[in-house]
Amino acid sequence: MTSENAIAKLKAKRNNALNAERLVASILKRDITALSKAITLVESKNPNHLEKARTIINSCLPHANNSIRIGITGVPGVGKSTFIETFGKHLTNLGKRVAVLAVDPSSAITKGSILGDKTRMEALVKDENAFIRPSASGGSLGGVARKTRETITLCEAAGFDVIIIETVGVGQSETTVHSMVDFFLLLKLAGAGDELQGIKRGIIEMADTIAINKADGANMQAAKLAKVEFTRALHFYPAKDSGWQPKVTSCSALENKGIDTIWTIIAEYVESTKANNFFSDKRNNQNKYWLIQTIEAQLKSDFFNKSHIQEALTQQLALIDSNKTTPFAAADYLLSLSKQ
Amino acid sequence: MTSENAIAKLKAKRNNALNAERLVASILKRDITALSKAITLVESKNPNHLEKARTIINSCLPHANNSIRIGITGVPGVGKSTFIETFGKHLTNLGKRVAVLAVDPSSAITKGSILGDKTRMEALVKDENAFIRPSASGGSLGGVARKTRETITLCEAAGFDVIIIETVGVGQSETTVHSMVDFFLLLKLAGAGDELQGIKRGIIEMADTIAINKADGANMQAAKLAKVEFTRALHFYPAKDSGWQPKVTSCSALENKGIDTIWTIIAEYVESTKANNFFSDKRNNQNKYWLIQTIEAQLKSDFFNKSHIQEALTQQLALIDSNKTTPFAAADYLLSLSKQ
Repeated sequence: MTSENAIAKLKAKRNNALNAERLVASILKRDITALSKAITLVESKNPNHLEKARTIINSCLPHANNSIRIGITGVPGVGKSTFIETFGKHLTNLGKRVAVLAVDPSSAITKGSILGDKTRMEALVKDENAFIRPSASGGSLGGVARKTRETITLCEAAGFDVIIIETVGVGQSETTVHSMVDFFLLLKLAGAGDELQGIKRGIIEMADTIAINKADGANMQAAKLAKVEFTRALHFYPAKDSGWQPKVTSCSALENKGIDTIWTIIAEYVESTKANNFFSDKRNNQNKYWLIQTIEAQLKSDFFNKSHIQEALTQQLALIDSNKTTPFAAADYLLSLSKQ
Repeated sequence: MTSENAIAKLKAKRNNALNAERLVASILKRDITALSKAITLVESKNPNHLEKARTIINSCLPHANNSIRIGITGVPGVGKSTFIETFGKHLTNLGKRVAVLAVDPSSAITKGSILGDKTRMEALVKDENAFIRPSASGGSLGGVARKTRETITLCEAAGFDVIIIETVGVGQSETTVHSMVDFFLLLKLAGAGDELQGIKRGIIEMADTIAINKADGANMQAAKLAKVEFTRALHFYPAKDSGWQPKVTSCSALENKGIDTIWTIIAEYVESTKANNFFSDKRNNQNKYWLIQTIEAQLKSDFFNKSHIQEALTQQLALIDSNKTTPFAAADYLLSLSKQ
């Protein structure tokens, strides 16, 4: 490297650092443009940008962690956008600042199936106390998760009191969102038949509250029935570590009914779990979870992405299928290959 | 190495192979002493023994896979031993050969809390068509699981038609057993209060059938009620991939009532899942699961057992707790350490 080149690199690095410092200062002053720029860096694939993002996040960390993080899930058609619009407006009317993020690993393909269409949240988009950011399209769920988790930190440093994270009922995305929020809200619809069929395994167990949405007009009676059914269903689930008894409620986001109740429930939850320390314990455990989870995912991908391992894996699976080896002997063999 | 030593080693190896060959031949002739010896090799910590065990298992593989593998779980006090005794006798009376194994990762501490006390299965112990083997004490659940899974292969090669694997509701042991059986039976007790409280998350979802045991004497009415409750509870769970609608039944192992019904249900299950190919698909998926599971467990333990990683992990966790780093930055750092 010529000395000129070296100097140029050094300058670029210093510029980067200065730039990051300025962005952080602006974020702490609640400058939304700066926040958006920082999130774009977090979502970038450029290593330079990611380096800068890391610096920014580290400077934001001491100013983060003061929001209430709420996960919201529900099948397509349950009215998540309308719900978040009405719920978000309710919060900004109470003087809260609200950030809305999304975890949607499919967004790379569907080009942002959720939150992509901001026109569905017209009032919230125009609200200066609200900030809406569609899902990062990081490819893998792990990638999206990390970017969302880091974006939460940035939003908290920018003074948002409530962070809403929306997700669709696809694959593991609910588990992912559940692992980064304080409170998990499941939106359901009162259907014609059996209300409880078709619910993905484990989702009900994750819910801190189930809200039957679209409890309006001709749906009122069905919503009432659904509420009874779900209350009974929750009775069959074991008690939560939080000591919190999950609630079932109904609401109409369209008619702005029952939305205040949901916020009251969340406030109660926060109060009771802060009182018994579950709130902070949960956050600490989530941090540990993400640390271990990130390491394990990387170890696996390092191993299974080696081309000679992939070939050998296919062969070993064939041998297992034809009863010529056991899964354990195959595993030993593959592990010995990677150590050579 | 002197040439004498080399020759001695070679001889030992040849002896080992010959020995293994002889054991396999005896196992295939249904010699229980040989089977027991082979299982002892599987459970050994001596690398020589394990090498021999691998040879034996490989030779047994083509003769394995023909049994029905049944997992049985239930809380302590539900009467698992008496149930297995009565159920096992029912099967041997039908001309079946029955092996009873156990997965109990706590057995190293409690010195065999289940199946350890064979006196509780007196009739079955004396039955020449039954074989009872307590849980291996392999330390980790993964270790016990592997040994049990390998023992299943040996028992199948020895011509056992039904393999029963007992487990207690401790930690992840049910999930482990569920991943190595064709059919999963949950034993429950009709209690005084709410029948469904205190059930560990996910266990009901795993059950192919729930049997309310001790449906006798003063318990009859409570058992009937419990049956209704559980049937209703199952209704709240999503349909199974097997296309099988889980059954609820009651029985009295003590009075040998309803035991035949359970075997009829299992036979129906096997018939219906063989018809729709779920039976073999499940076994193939289980094999893949154990392959991947074994590799991942080893990758993790290789990583986290390094002493410099353990030290750095403790430091990083402290930094996370004090908001000085993120779980992701900490993970990146730890991964970079291990690559140095």
